Amino acid sequence: MSAKKQSLNIAMIGHGFIARAHSNAFLQVSHFFDSPYQLIPRVICGRDRTKTEAMAARWGWCEAASDWRSVVDRPDIQVVDIATPNALHAPIALAAAAAGKIVCCEKPLALSFAQADTMASAVKNLPNLVWFNYRRAPAVALAKVMLDEGRLGRIYHYRALYLNQSGNDPTKTSGWRYQRAQAGSGALGDLLSHSIDLAQHLNGPIAEFCAMSHTFAPGRDVDDAVAVLARFANQSVGTFEATRYGVGCRNRNAFEVNGARGMLAFNLERMNRLEFLDATEPAEVQGMRDIMVTGPNHPYWENFWKPGHEIGYEHTFIATLGDFLQALDRGEPFHPNFEDARKVQKVLEAIIGSASSASWVKV
Amino acid sequence: MSAKKQSLNIAMIGHGFIARAHSNAFLQVSHFFDSPYQLIPRVICGRDRTKTEAMAARWGWCEAASDWRSVVDRPDIQVVDIATPNALHAPIALAAAAAGKIVCCEKPLALSFAQADTMASAVKNLPNLVWFNYRRAPAVALAKVMLDEGRLGRIYHYRALYLNQSGNDPTKTSGWRYQRAQAGSGALGDLLSHSIDLAQHLNGPIAEFCAMSHTFAPGRDVDDAVAVLARFANQSVGTFEATRYGVGCRNRNAFEVNGARGMLAFNLERMNRLEFLDATEPAEVQGMRDIMVTGPNHPYWENFWKPGHEIGYEHTFIATLGDFLQALDRGEPFHPNFEDARKVQKVLEAIIGSASSASWVKV
Amino acid sequence: MSAKKQSLNIAMIGHGFIARAHSNAFLQVSHFFDSPYQLIPRVICGRDRTKTEAMAARWGWCEAASDWRSVVDRPDIQVVDIATPNALHAPIALAAAAAGKIVCCEKPLALSFAQADTMASAVKNLPNLVWFNYRRAPAVALAKVMLDEGRLGRIYHYRALYLNQSGNDPTKTSGWRYQRAQAGSGALGDLLSHSIDLAQHLNGPIAEFCAMSHTFAPGRDVDDAVAVLARFANQSVGTFEATRYGVGCRNRNAFEVNGARGMLAFNLERMNRLEFLDATEPAEVQGMRDIMVTGPNHPYWENFWKPGHEIGYEHTFIATLGDFLQALDRGEPFHPNFEDARKVQKVLEAIIGSASSASWVKV
Amino acid sequence: MSAKKQSLNIAMIGHGFIARAHSNAFLQVSHFFDSPYQLIPRVICGRDRTKTEAMAARWGWCEAASDWRSVVDRPDIQVVDIATPNALHAPIALAAAAAGKIVCCEKPLALSFAQADTMASAVKNLPNLVWFNYRRAPAVALAKVMLDEGRLGRIYHYRALYLNQSGNDPTKTSGWRYQRAQAGSGALGDLLSHSIDLAQHLNGPIAEFCAMSHTFAPGRDVDDAVAVLARFANQSVGTFEATRYGVGCRNRNAFEVNGARGMLAFNLERMNRLEFLDATEPAEVQGMRDIMVTGPNHPYWENFWKPGHEIGYEHTFIATLGDFLQALDRGEPFHPNFEDARKVQKVLEAIIGSASSASWVKV
Repeated sequence: MSAKKQSLNIAMIGHGFIARAHSNAFLQVSHFFDSPYQLIPRVICGRDRTKTEAMAARWGWCEAASDWRSVVDRPDIQVVDIATPNALHAPIALAAAAAGKIVCCEKPLALSFAQADTMASAVKNLPNLVWFNYRRAPAVALAKVMLDEGRLGRIYHYRALYLNQSGNDPTKTSGWRYQRAQAGSGALGDLLSHSIDLAQHLNGPIAEFCAMSHTFAPGRDVDDAVAVLARFANQSVGTFEATRYGVGCRNRNAFEVNGARGMLAFNLERMNRLEFLDATEPAEVQGMRDIMVTGPNHPYWENFWKPGHEIGYEHTFIATLGDFLQALDRGEPFHPNFEDARKVQKVLEAIIGSASSASWVKV
Repeated sequence: MSAKKQSLNIAMIGHGFIARAHSNAFLQVSHFFDSPYQLIPRVICGRDRTKTEAMAARWGWCEAASDWRSVVDRPDIQVVDIATPNALHAPIALAAAAAGKIVCCEKPLALSFAQADTMASAVKNLPNLVWFNYRRAPAVALAKVMLDEGRLGRIYHYRALYLNQSGNDPTKTSGWRYQRAQAGSGALGDLLSHSIDLAQHLNGPIAEFCAMSHTFAPGRDVDDAVAVLARFANQSVGTFEATRYGVGCRNRNAFEVNGARGMLAFNLERMNRLEFLDATEPAEVQGMRDIMVTGPNHPYWENFWKPGHEIGYEHTFIATLGDFLQALDRGEPFHPNFEDARKVQKVLEAIIGSASSASWVKV
Repeated sequence: MSAKKQSLNIAMIGHGFIARAHSNAFLQVSHFFDSPYQLIPRVICGRDRTKTEAMAARWGWCEAASDWRSVVDRPDIQVVDIATPNALHAPIALAAAAAGKIVCCEKPLALSFAQADTMASAVKNLPNLVWFNYRRAPAVALAKVMLDEGRLGRIYHYRALYLNQSGNDPTKTSGWRYQRAQAGSGALGDLLSHSIDLAQHLNGPIAEFCAMSHTFAPGRDVDDAVAVLARFANQSVGTFEATRYGVGCRNRNAFEVNGARGMLAFNLERMNRLEFLDATEPAEVQGMRDIMVTGPNHPYWENFWKPGHEIGYEHTFIATLGDFLQALDRGEPFHPNFEDARKVQKVLEAIIGSASSASWVKV
Repeated sequence: MSAKKQSLNIAMIGHGFIARAHSNAFLQVSHFFDSPYQLIPRVICGRDRTKTEAMAARWGWCEAASDWRSVVDRPDIQVVDIATPNALHAPIALAAAAAGKIVCCEKPLALSFAQADTMASAVKNLPNLVWFNYRRAPAVALAKVMLDEGRLGRIYHYRALYLNQSGNDPTKTSGWRYQRAQAGSGALGDLLSHSIDLAQHLNGPIAEFCAMSHTFAPGRDVDDAVAVLARFANQSVGTFEATRYGVGCRNRNAFEVNGARGMLAFNLERMNRLEFLDATEPAEVQGMRDIMVTGPNHPYWENFWKPGHEIGYEHTFIATLGDFLQALDRGEPFHPNFEDARKVQKVLEAIIGSASSASWVKV
């Protein structure tokens, strides 16, 4: 059966933590999804040869390479997956686009809105994907279904946090994530970009906002924390906060929605759960219910294990890729793509502007 | 208005912790319930004169006394409330009954079933009450309503725990609670009696069971822990456990019920909450809901504060007394009374027998 | 013993929900605290005679009155307690101050900063109290102790929410709480005032902020929701949000603090709990711990019941009053007083300014 | 690098849900562990040819076969993995042992203790493994470390539940899991076997117990629910309950331990968490802490993702296999093996005896 499938040769650029999550997705997608393609992990490319070769050996990449420009131009490659520090996203994506490849890129898409805009234009006629993977945590996907069904009625409040403690050692200034030239921003692009993407995915466009940012660590030129007041186009009130100084929080990518008919809450630290209160029920039985989103009848429940059996972080990448391959096969649009990420980047850049000018900004 | 109310002169025997909770109930009931009577805290009686006088001064008892026999016989007293160590429950209750008083008694009712049986017979034509106060935690009362409505369908499982760490210092052997002659039993009468009363209140009679008990502390002649397997008359399966060595648990008086149509869970450590899962809902929105049982439409919600405002431990006594006074006024039966407590005592005594004979027992 | 105590005759103005909570505190304080005074509930005063008389009868006020001016001037009254709608706070407080009374006032103190300023000046030589009762929830008091001990180290983030659904019926415009002339503001004064008081109590003064407010209900002239970005004087970053459209939340008065050495979290919906993460522990045993703040060794644990036995909403008022009477007896300052409330009012008024001018404001 | 590794050809018998989890482990182990071997998924064998071929295609098994006897005897096979209904475990394991293979077997090991005893003897000189996978949930492994370190001191109580609702449709009698000839028992072998294995792993041998079992569904000849009172060899008191009628519970494989120095709690429905209370801390900061067991310094944290990133169900199999391969390479014993499973089976069989004789049994 698999012999008949079209194969796609993948080139992945990057060899860090996120490249590991991508590698896993490329290898695992066909086990959990009816993949229309046979994915071939053809070449992994990274600056550190030893690490790149170790990754290749461990994850089954056929080849290890070190020059991304030559890899991107190889005619046997159909898919270029970008898993590098942020500063390399644009040059690699533009080269891959120029070479007519399918382009997948880690978030945040770019260092600036100008970059993101150019990149989105470059790939607009090519299949493309940005790894805003949390849209496809089953609990988030369930929230999306419920919101689209109107289960919450008119939305009053959208509240998002992304708190971790990754940067709370103020003496730590090395690492590309703490340098503006490499990362573009700090907690903003690293963490809040996820929150913004989810917010616009779930609650529609943000219309205007006012932001503040703060750097706790002396010597860093990126933000350690950012907070935002917002109004959405649907007239709901939004608040956002992201920080790398959220001591006590490991990975609290959380949102809450209050609507006329109920409430939803999600927290990535318990990613298999969605909390829901149905305000249309009799008052005496209303309460936040803790839904274990592992089926039956939940997004992706037939793909993964069975009801009551949790999935982990990596499955959000597998589900993203599974849906992307289906859309590719059917010639349908896929989201989140570069265009979606461009919209996120527009907000991120405007947040920087709002924070530095201490004023409200319309998107 | 209050001038027209019949007054009831109260005599309370005891001056310890539980006497404080009773005193509070006598003073507070008319603030939260439309009390048909004016309760007069006439006399508090205790063995330690200093403590008794201090309690009288603090809680507004008109008099302090030390000889319960003369107090019980006073013609100006209508209500005798027993808040003493267990060993005194029977003599005081029997004397109060002989004097024709309304009798209220702390749990467990007696040291033995024989005592309880005699006591229940003695008061059967007098208004009487046993302070199994947790029946009237609003969350427990809501569970009762839901079970009676059939919201859970046929019951499969009833599971109860009462875990605290009150006795986990094995060198502690003083105190009446650790002496069989004073207390009758240990965790059994102190803790499991509540669980048994709630179980029979919520899920009907226990038909048969098998028990074990254990004493961790050298030199104690009462049980520190007890565990029970049970079958209820309604064919559901029961398990019970109580311990004073539940290190980490402060007051975990908890039960869970699984039925064909859903699940309920309660834990006294979060006494304003009832958890409920409605298994008749679509699978994708099923989840344990955490109901804050402070109204609207919850038991006692109009008596106490307002929705979202928690009540505390003492309100279970106030609600018990409020309902008792209403029943008294209407000439209606009140529960839990001595007869209910007699049934609990029957189970407690049979548990001792089962544990010592290591065999199943029918109730 | 009580015969020797000085008595204080109380006049309470107001007969609504909060007057009930105050009445309870006046009656109960001597049961849980060693009160240096004998409090006499001398007179309750309200506009609705029937309701006032009913309150008097139920809660044991000696007299019912309807003209607050004459009550405030009565020479037999030592304490004037203000439990009216907000608009009456200032005239009553000023009259009471002019009459030299001890003055207790419900929050928010005033309709405007100008009012609050005048009021604070008027009482500055008189014992006075403002019912920011949540400072004395034992869990909040424990947080204060831990912060003062430096258990959290340098503070990075302070995050506060006060969400309820009290106003989420947009057709509801009656009631003094929804009219600016009566209430001064909406969610701001009703809810956020508590959050601001707690924030400044726990984390010190707010230095600057930027706010937004929103009214969902057509026809209301008060805010339904308010959100704030802030910087504290201690360089920490703050966020605040309060709403009456928080569907799904009954009384979520919550805060979180992230510091260099750990994290704290509180939520009034589980008021007997404080969550704490100690970041100085070995990483492998770090986790948010759920502390049941009922003793041993917790604030007020010897006043109320015993470890593992929850207290309710009303105990925050009792503890406030208990501490106030101790301070009065010793001639020591008490907090929160009119001066503290004046500082809260200053922030509230500046929030209105910031929201309407869409700009940052320094306090 | 991988070229130098010894390869192991795997034959897996079975094509159901659990075979999927095993397949995943064989493919994934080398990505997360430094595998000393190259595992080759040589052949999958199942009775239903269509399903077997589909599994082979999806999971990359080189061949699909239908006659397990011939597969087990193939000289090119080094490892036989048994993922069949319980009744086939013994014949396949005995044949694999006779052929000198490494043998891996799904739990419960056998239909009876006699079978298990024979099987354990047969493999005693061969590397072998039984898939009691939950020992290696990182949170369970952390509990084991903490108990072995004496962090809980003397153990007083061990309390285990395994509740799901898999069998709560009483009309459902088909399926091998509901037939004694195929499954040996019901909830007992399916669910309680995990609890017994974990209990003996964490708390040492069970010395004696008394059990009850119950079948709710008419026509089933296996138990739907089982409950057990136990005494461990270390003098602690145990309780166990397993049911397929636990409506509201999806996969609640939970245990709690109370010891002199603290408490631990685990629940598979939140498998990335371990709850811990340290009773040696000052009382005022004691509380159950919710440890997210994803590192740093947790079992397997360097194998999987990074702190704050959850893992799922399948990683318990991967970790089991990873440790097994390491032990195999080093010639060290591995646990849980057939001998461990034999001890579990001994308890399971004695539970059946205790339940049918309604009496206490010594192990």
